[in-house]
Amino acid sequence: MPPTATRFAWLPHWLRHYQRAWLGGDVSAGLIVAVLVIPQSLAYTLLAGLPAEMGLYASILPVVAYALVGSSMTLAVGPVAIAALMTASALQPLAIAGTTEYVQLAMHLALISGLMFLAFGALRLGFLAYFLSRPVISGFVSGSAVMIALGQLKHILGVEAPSSSSAATLQGLWRALPQSNPTAIALGLGSMVALLLARRILAPALLRVGVGAQAADLLARMAPIATVIVGTGLVAWGQWDVTRQVAVVGSVPAGLPAWNLSLPGLSELGQLWLPALLISLVGFVGSVSVAQSFAMQRQQRIAPDRELWGMGAANIASALTGSYPVHGGLSRSAINFAAGAQTPLASLITAAFMVVIISLFTPLFYYLPLAVLAAGIIVAVFSLVDMATLQASWAYDRADALSLLATAVGVIVLGVETGIVLGVAMSLAALVWRSSHPHMAVVGRVPGTEHFRNVERHAVETVPGLLALRVDESLFFANATALEEHIETLMQADASIRRLLLVCSAVNQIDATALGMLTELEQSLSQRGIRLELAEVKGPVMDRLQPTTLGQRLQGRLFRSVHDAFVATDRQTDPHWQSP
Amino acid sequence: MPPTATRFAWLPHWLRHYQRAWLGGDVSAGLIVAVLVIPQSLAYTLLAGLPAEMGLYASILPVVAYALVGSSMTLAVGPVAIAALMTASALQPLAIAGTTEYVQLAMHLALISGLMFLAFGALRLGFLAYFLSRPVISGFVSGSAVMIALGQLKHILGVEAPSSSSAATLQGLWRALPQSNPTAIALGLGSMVALLLARRILAPALLRVGVGAQAADLLARMAPIATVIVGTGLVAWGQWDVTRQVAVVGSVPAGLPAWNLSLPGLSELGQLWLPALLISLVGFVGSVSVAQSFAMQRQQRIAPDRELWGMGAANIASALTGSYPVHGGLSRSAINFAAGAQTPLASLITAAFMVVIISLFTPLFYYLPLAVLAAGIIVAVFSLVDMATLQASWAYDRADALSLLATAVGVIVLGVETGIVLGVAMSLAALVWRSSHPHMAVVGRVPGTEHFRNVERHAVETVPGLLALRVDESLFFANATALEEHIETLMQADASIRRLLLVCSAVNQIDATALGMLTELEQSLSQRGIRLELAEVKGPVMDRLQPTTLGQRLQGRLFRSVHDAFVATDRQTDPHWQSP
Repeated sequence: MPPTATRFAWLPHWLRHYQRAWLGGDVSAGLIVAVLVIPQSLAYTLLAGLPAEMGLYASILPVVAYALVGSSMTLAVGPVAIAALMTASALQPLAIAGTTEYVQLAMHLALISGLMFLAFGALRLGFLAYFLSRPVISGFVSGSAVMIALGQLKHILGVEAPSSSSAATLQGLWRALPQSNPTAIALGLGSMVALLLARRILAPALLRVGVGAQAADLLARMAPIATVIVGTGLVAWGQWDVTRQVAVVGSVPAGLPAWNLSLPGLSELGQLWLPALLISLVGFVGSVSVAQSFAMQRQQRIAPDRELWGMGAANIASALTGSYPVHGGLSRSAINFAAGAQTPLASLITAAFMVVIISLFTPLFYYLPLAVLAAGIIVAVFSLVDMATLQASWAYDRADALSLLATAVGVIVLGVETGIVLGVAMSLAALVWRSSHPHMAVVGRVPGTEHFRNVERHAVETVPGLLALRVDESLFFANATALEEHIETLMQADASIRRLLLVCSAVNQIDATALGMLTELEQSLSQRGIRLELAEVKGPVMDRLQPTTLGQRLQGRLFRSVHDAFVATDRQTDPHWQSP
Repeated sequence: MPPTATRFAWLPHWLRHYQRAWLGGDVSAGLIVAVLVIPQSLAYTLLAGLPAEMGLYASILPVVAYALVGSSMTLAVGPVAIAALMTASALQPLAIAGTTEYVQLAMHLALISGLMFLAFGALRLGFLAYFLSRPVISGFVSGSAVMIALGQLKHILGVEAPSSSSAATLQGLWRALPQSNPTAIALGLGSMVALLLARRILAPALLRVGVGAQAADLLARMAPIATVIVGTGLVAWGQWDVTRQVAVVGSVPAGLPAWNLSLPGLSELGQLWLPALLISLVGFVGSVSVAQSFAMQRQQRIAPDRELWGMGAANIASALTGSYPVHGGLSRSAINFAAGAQTPLASLITAAFMVVIISLFTPLFYYLPLAVLAAGIIVAVFSLVDMATLQASWAYDRADALSLLATAVGVIVLGVETGIVLGVAMSLAALVWRSSHPHMAVVGRVPGTEHFRNVERHAVETVPGLLALRVDESLFFANATALEEHIETLMQADASIRRLLLVCSAVNQIDATALGMLTELEQSLSQRGIRLELAEVKGPVMDRLQPTTLGQRLQGRLFRSVHDAFVATDRQTDPHWQSP
């Protein structure tokens, strides 16, 4: 191994093995991302109810931290719409947006979320993200998109409106409608039309005239910065912020962020832990799925544990440099990927360029009209409304579709956190409901074979006095009672049964509740002179069953296969059996 | 069919087919239960923070309603300790115990709980009770027993103490200790010793002198009424309520309850729905398990849906006659069963006798000392503390044991509702965690057979380029990502693989999340020239898979058995495969 490999082992793999051929793509992608995501960063930060400069801070140290720790080659980290909405929704009940207290809470939210990411990574709790099923995530993203768009309408209209709930926002907008600002509306609608045209017409047109797919995509993605430049230019030229009362970003303080080393108090922790948990889970699922989809296109791999560490490092860096929760963003990663980024060096270049911008060019943002930023957000989030998943879920699995709808409607009507908790609860209820109604079949032997099939579907042989019941589900608290009742019904239907054989080929687990049920069932059956037997118990299940009371009592009644149980008719006179 | 069968079809089966032989047992059991459960009913009602007469009301119409609607022959319905504790815990934050408002809330709680029971029955939502696994129920009952005993200590000491939380109760008792009432302590401790002696010494002694087991049990169960008679007699004789400030039940209004037809308002509904849901679920699980254990001893059956209707009718009857939530009680059912009850006629006789008592004999309760009632409660609930289940769970399944402990500690430290919600959340988390780490095995053919086993445990044959992976779990949101990652790892470890065969013999369900993952996996693999195949897909899973995009794309790649897939080596040149 060359000496550099050991001396710089602390450096990430991509940096230690950096190839000159990658540099062109990384540098150009880094610069393009920095320029293109500035409007987005500002807009999402205002959406979170925070001062604009925090969006720029979020694009410096957090980006560096993720680049050095994360596992994706192309994921671009920074302010994203969903995290901004969740931040606003978590903090608005606790403080007034824009106050020092609110800003402090946002930083603490990032800190707690970052520490949770690290804890998930260390404790291997990444599985918590699995609680979010695809229908729940889809419903959550769609509902959030509607919420975000709704919250931006006030900027398009140039009025004030509350954002505590969808109902309050709609009422406020309705009441403020007569005071709306025609110039803001013109700027906002103009930008929206321009953005939609760029997406629907410009990109296909570029493709037709022979521009490559990635270049066409990138050019179409430049539309937001173009609307920002035109909008800012117009307002500055006409001094519309004064003459026509158009709301603008205003002065953004220049210079790097100060270090923030404050820690949340206990009562703050009590208020922020649930939002931080939900932001972390949603952010993890979102970031990993974005990272994975780009990695797959280049035959690369993502290490989920390293993603947790990377997101944790990024959020702690965000909190330390005075900013708020950051995630891997779909649109900024798409720009990065399309612009040819090969390694996280691109992100390091983005961060360096951001330092230049924040040091020298913040006065450029003064005249940036909020209506134009809002137009960019609305067009961006509407592509997140996902009807295809709803349709597919409806066709495939009604319960999943209902979880999706409940989550979306819950987010819009009851709020972001309640909506997602409702969706998770519904998908867990569906899981328990499905598992609580297991498919069960009485089986018999296909003549001349060792195969056993459902007696209701196939012409099979049975042994008098032996009932073989196959349960197509793990046995656990959700279905233990249903199984017990089904067995009692079968036993009462046929008084001649002397052996009940449970075929466990599909039983992957038996939990304590099901074990208790089986133990009682065995005793109750044996009092009635019926012998409980098991067949095809899987290795891991058998290992845990053996030392229990039930396992001891079942000695000699555990068959390797259903066939073995069928031929073992002499066992009924087993001397141990008579005195259980 | 005789004419009576059609004319009286609305009557319960047991009444239409009543046999004279049953009458003796039913009448004597009905009278014995009525007398023996009076102290219990009064005590639990005081524990719920309600006036004593409500405990008597709860033993009239609710008992009649359950007798006519329920399916158990021996379950005795009425006030029970856990429901009383849950009522107190739900209402104490909302109103001051003993006020008209508090009493009204208790009736509304019974009404909402009763309607929930009916709704569960009508919508077949009884499966919601399955969310309560045995460890959670065991932890909940043990924790509640500690809470109940703790709350009764103030009556033994003859002092006042808050009951808002365990910590507050302990602090209050500690501070009030110097003011404790020696007579109350003497009465309380005396009763406790008498009760423990009756249970530990009287019953075994009776058995030894030749009394039958059921009669001995019944005589031992008479101990509480004996302590009540002695205690009441002592206080009345010495006028200790005045001379020694011993707290007594006091005057209980005579006469039947008035009809209560008030309905809860919307805001009240918002406060009561969760406690009502938890009371209903806990009550349903408790009542059904008690009913089932007695039914099994006589080879009878319980119909869970009719139990829901019966509990619903009982609780609505309770609300209408000015009382609070009632459930099937273990100790009153045990008395009923031991005293020879054959049918619910016994309960009807209990109710009729209760009408006599409430009309004529309420002055007898005046001098009943609270310390004696508290002693009865403490001794009764301590038998509910269940260490055996904790030990068994700890040995069998650490996650289940932790759910049990979390529920018990949660109930004691954080309160009844938080404790049970915590336990349910933990058992669901354990379920998702287990399912998210499925057992997966690469399998090969046992030479000379059609059996396939784990390549790591057995000497088996494999086909070059074919990887057969068996997943021992249903595929759903909790393990879709884990499976995808495992497959990617396997694919990267062996670049020669051209066919990936998923063996689905243990896959009982595929949800929308897993379907989405498989659809993407199939596309990603096919881009890399790898063919995804499935084998041994179960009928119900196949039925839903077939019409999906994935099902369409997999045509010709779905094998009945692993063996079929192994021999189908020529399929690799299937013309459809080259252009997916």
